[in-house]
Amino acid sequence: MKKILQHIDHTMPSLVSDLQTLIRQPSVSAKNEGIEQCARLVANMLKKSGIKSEILRLRGVAPLVYGEIKSKKNPNKAILFYNHYDVQPAEPFDLWDDPPFSGVVKGNKIFGRGSTDDKGELITRIKAVEAFLQQTGDVPCNVKFVIEGEEEIGSAHIEQYLKKYQKKFACDGVIWEFGYVDAKNRPIIGLGMKGLLYVELTAKESIRDAHSSLAVIIKNPAWRLVDALKTLRDSSGKILIKDWYKEVTPFSKSDLELLSKEPFDESGFKSEYRISEFVNNKKGIGVKKALAGDPTCNIAGMISGYTLQGAKTVLPSSAMVKIDFRLVPKMDPKKQMARLRSHLKKHGFSDIQIKMYHGEAASRTDPVSPFVENVKAAAKSSFGSYIVNVSNAGTGPMHSFASVLKAPCISIGSTYMFARIHSPNEFARIDLLKKTTKCMCHILDKF
Amino acid sequence: MKKILQHIDHTMPSLVSDLQTLIRQPSVSAKNEGIEQCARLVANMLKKSGIKSEILRLRGVAPLVYGEIKSKKNPNKAILFYNHYDVQPAEPFDLWDDPPFSGVVKGNKIFGRGSTDDKGELITRIKAVEAFLQQTGDVPCNVKFVIEGEEEIGSAHIEQYLKKYQKKFACDGVIWEFGYVDAKNRPIIGLGMKGLLYVELTAKESIRDAHSSLAVIIKNPAWRLVDALKTLRDSSGKILIKDWYKEVTPFSKSDLELLSKEPFDESGFKSEYRISEFVNNKKGIGVKKALAGDPTCNIAGMISGYTLQGAKTVLPSSAMVKIDFRLVPKMDPKKQMARLRSHLKKHGFSDIQIKMYHGEAASRTDPVSPFVENVKAAAKSSFGSYIVNVSNAGTGPMHSFASVLKAPCISIGSTYMFARIHSPNEFARIDLLKKTTKCMCHILDKF
Repeated sequence: MKKILQHIDHTMPSLVSDLQTLIRQPSVSAKNEGIEQCARLVANMLKKSGIKSEILRLRGVAPLVYGEIKSKKNPNKAILFYNHYDVQPAEPFDLWDDPPFSGVVKGNKIFGRGSTDDKGELITRIKAVEAFLQQTGDVPCNVKFVIEGEEEIGSAHIEQYLKKYQKKFACDGVIWEFGYVDAKNRPIIGLGMKGLLYVELTAKESIRDAHSSLAVIIKNPAWRLVDALKTLRDSSGKILIKDWYKEVTPFSKSDLELLSKEPFDESGFKSEYRISEFVNNKKGIGVKKALAGDPTCNIAGMISGYTLQGAKTVLPSSAMVKIDFRLVPKMDPKKQMARLRSHLKKHGFSDIQIKMYHGEAASRTDPVSPFVENVKAAAKSSFGSYIVNVSNAGTGPMHSFASVLKAPCISIGSTYMFARIHSPNEFARIDLLKKTTKCMCHILDKF
Repeated sequence: MKKILQHIDHTMPSLVSDLQTLIRQPSVSAKNEGIEQCARLVANMLKKSGIKSEILRLRGVAPLVYGEIKSKKNPNKAILFYNHYDVQPAEPFDLWDDPPFSGVVKGNKIFGRGSTDDKGELITRIKAVEAFLQQTGDVPCNVKFVIEGEEEIGSAHIEQYLKKYQKKFACDGVIWEFGYVDAKNRPIIGLGMKGLLYVELTAKESIRDAHSSLAVIIKNPAWRLVDALKTLRDSSGKILIKDWYKEVTPFSKSDLELLSKEPFDESGFKSEYRISEFVNNKKGIGVKKALAGDPTCNIAGMISGYTLQGAKTVLPSSAMVKIDFRLVPKMDPKKQMARLRSHLKKHGFSDIQIKMYHGEAASRTDPVSPFVENVKAAAKSSFGSYIVNVSNAGTGPMHSFASVLKAPCISIGSTYMFARIHSPNEFARIDLLKKTTKCMCHILDKF
């Protein structure tokens, strides 16, 4: 292992430059920008590292890059690295200090959309395998790469890919596409993820915008939407849709124990986002319980009428809002969608159009699993310490992997908690990329 | 008069081409685009028509174009034409069939931003004076032109101009910058206008957009704004701000009489905007009372977070809404502004930033005035019939003119009710431009 770890130390410049190459290829799935090109780039990068790669396809869907390398000495066990090559849109552009797809390095940081999420994470997995191949000519176990192109728009087809290639993807453990690292440089071993229901609501009235003096007789769809929104949620954040929380179960005793051990730097977090208090003035265990277990109804975007500078007296003809609902275990996205639909109908808003972007169930991995022990040991070796997290606040298709591949899924990686993922000036920390690459080596070694 | 009216008939091509010249010079006051250039263009156009013109200035403010021509035979009476050379923003561009500043003629219509509002109206006043000058070498009374450049952003400095040039602008009657023409080609003689309070509210929370999974602990400013908005107005449109309606007086008996005589083509209006019913299912006199006398709280625009295509899971850092409140006589914009401010404070929304764009009081002219009789007769001569309207639903600085110049103000003009002013594909009807030019000649002749 010493030789492997030294190899990582010596080849960091190549890791950084390969990551820059990935960042410089935009791959915004929300706009279908550069997806095909980025898939090819990633497949070639796997090959360059000695990993057999191919591009798998489903009709009319972003391609999936698959990589595989068989172990000579341990051909009966396989680990699967799940990652994604697509990124979030970079808007608003004017808030970036450097162009979002430039991959500028400043000191210990590489800036760019995807620098952490998820191109930075992906490169650590590739480089770990490359280190074993270059130093030993073998890998400690079979390794599979599943790198999809639709994660940022909800992984709508990953389950279809998983089912179609169930045999090819068969494995004994999944390393998730990211893992957070906290302000004290401790990796967070994540055992679960929340689910998501993402919808767009649109209210329409007249066929075109009108002079706002006509607001006395033509209904205003922006007000219509505000009226509808106000029925969904109270000002504390509680969702008012009937039976929304019906299947939600409280934390188990062991969950609560893990949560109580979990550190969370409240003042560091607040100062990073320059906020004075948390929602409902939550503190301590309340904050941690919310992150791991609270469903949300979040306005991700809304627009109507004239929004540029100055005053335009206009009565808009339509208004639109995008909402993401985070779900917790046992909440079924389809059932929740039906509840939303019947709520709007019941409250007299059946004129409001609903578009469902995607739904994803939540997932949690059993903390009592040898794979969890393996990852804990690897994290301890490379980072010095670690934290175990009951569930991440975010969403990923963990439920699909766990149910189709029947393998435990664990999230561990290089995602610095304040790396501004999904926001302007996203960056990756080079020191964490190095530690994470070493951590992946330990995981493979001990598998 | 016959010669004058024939002159109008013969010179319509020059009216159309001069209007195209005006449309082709963008002059969007909301963005300070082309304002100075358009002022110079208008001043030169007045000169070309034989009217002495000059550009008046206040520091840091859009210039005002002033025109004047003295009458030899009747130098003791003056009529003042109030118009504006600025236009509304043309957004959304993609809904225009032709470029908004192209002035394309198709049959009886000239298309373009400002084709009616207010460049079309302005050209009728100029051409009426030009006809007298070219045919008789004189005008029937002194004529003054006050053409401002900030009407579409609330005429914030017209009162200052009026006060500074009170003597220069002295007159015995004001013809307003526009006048509606209904679906049956009847001009509407308008005796009043509503006031306006235009504000922008902004809610801010964290310093930057965040991953929406953090919505469990970081407050969402879009929700904050929705919560605040919902306290301003109930779903029927009633404004919930304390004392908002305190000074509002009911219609007088003679107002109601005028309103009952006023025709309003409900089904024509509905089919034009493709709406199935009016606000609160208003009908008959209810619709007309609302247009002349209901205050409003209209969302003119709102934006937060990600509003492009696809799904972005983001927690916005800010949310903004633009609101225009229409006011009726005796409502003081400053007092209403203070009420809005204290309402938000009282309801716990003092964190919401308020920007006031402008305030304008409502105005009504006494129907018993010789000037009203003059305009009625002119309208009868040129259009064949007319309608008298208690108050327009829209806003203009009529209150400033009436109070500073102490002259009756009447609105009459060529603005076809469905001319899409403030909307994409705004147009002017050439037949109405001709009739209005002739109507202006009659008004001057009988003054």
